[in-house]
Amino acid sequence: MNKDKKDSDNGLLLVYTGNGKGKTTAALGMCVRAVGYDWNVCIIQFVKGSWKYGELKGIKRLEPNVELFTVGEGFVGIVDDKKEFAEHQRAAAEGIDFAKDKITSGKYNLVILDELNVAYDLKLIDKDQVLQLVDAKSTEQHLVITGRGAPEFLIEKADLVTEMKEIKHPYQAGILAQKGIDW
Amino acid sequence: MNKDKKDSDNGLLLVYTGNGKGKTTAALGMCVRAVGYDWNVCIIQFVKGSWKYGELKGIKRLEPNVELFTVGEGFVGIVDDKKEFAEHQRAAAEGIDFAKDKITSGKYNLVILDELNVAYDLKLIDKDQVLQLVDAKSTEQHLVITGRGAPEFLIEKADLVTEMKEIKHPYQAGILAQKGIDW
Repeated sequence: MNKDKKDSDNGLLLVYTGNGKGKTTAALGMCVRAVGYDWNVCIIQFVKGSWKYGELKGIKRLEPNVELFTVGEGFVGIVDDKKEFAEHQRAAAEGIDFAKDKITSGKYNLVILDELNVAYDLKLIDKDQVLQLVDAKSTEQHLVITGRGAPEFLIEKADLVTEMKEIKHPYQAGILAQKGIDW
Repeated sequence: MNKDKKDSDNGLLLVYTGNGKGKTTAALGMCVRAVGYDWNVCIIQFVKGSWKYGELKGIKRLEPNVELFTVGEGFVGIVDDKKEFAEHQRAAAEGIDFAKDKITSGKYNLVILDELNVAYDLKLIDKDQVLQLVDAKSTEQHLVITGRGAPEFLIEKADLVTEMKEIKHPYQAGILAQKGIDW
């Protein structure tokens, strides 16, 4: 962790939730701000395949400060998902251990657990596993958790919660997912 | 505009509004995605001083694709603001002209009008001026407008609107604004 560049001992737990667009995008934006302070950032994606070409390539511009890791085995229950549920859970449990190691490594000023709420909502991980990660955070470290359906116990623990609420979405007008916007 | 890198003719009008954190941050995150596609991005800040050290320094990592400009004269009506309202309006009108030039320059795949809603809300600009910018957008160009209090006519025109709704904020617990989070 770049302690020289921090001046806060109030590391926050932030949650971006809700059904609207902008949750992961805001987490990406936090990375831009963080590298401005020469912070080290670790992003852990809990849903494989949730990030597409644009994000994956763009985030490279923020290396080496920002590191991106993927854990888990992709969306459960969608078409073509032939994996057993238990296999998804095993992968998610490994992801939790991996994330805990990263959070406690002392290297990162900011850790982003992308789509962790979704993994919880899909019952790939349980409350205890979420709390293990939250409790692993040091006092000076910022932890960001994204994904729709943030559980109440997480909202209670968090310092800052924003609900990204969908007011209007292009699919309502029959417009398909857009390059640069959705992926 | 980098036309080789686009594959969409459905440029969208996106609005990030609401009282919660994450609006400008999500716009910043869109810049990361955009540079991943080698797009050119123009950010125009309508409230001087709304971006702080972290953002300003971090965004440099996305140069030369992303360019940032500031128009207007800062927040109106806050302490130490000794400027006349008419002066603010003049500066905002110049900002509108500047933004229109940028939008129609043919250079940018994505234009972000940061805090434009606030300028409208403060009556520094009027509905016609907002619509001039919206109507200047080409069909393949994405335009993002941020700021709390998006007017209804803008929401009606937009393809995608997310309300960033404050569920919980650190100041509720007496925690002051945080480096890397608020600035």
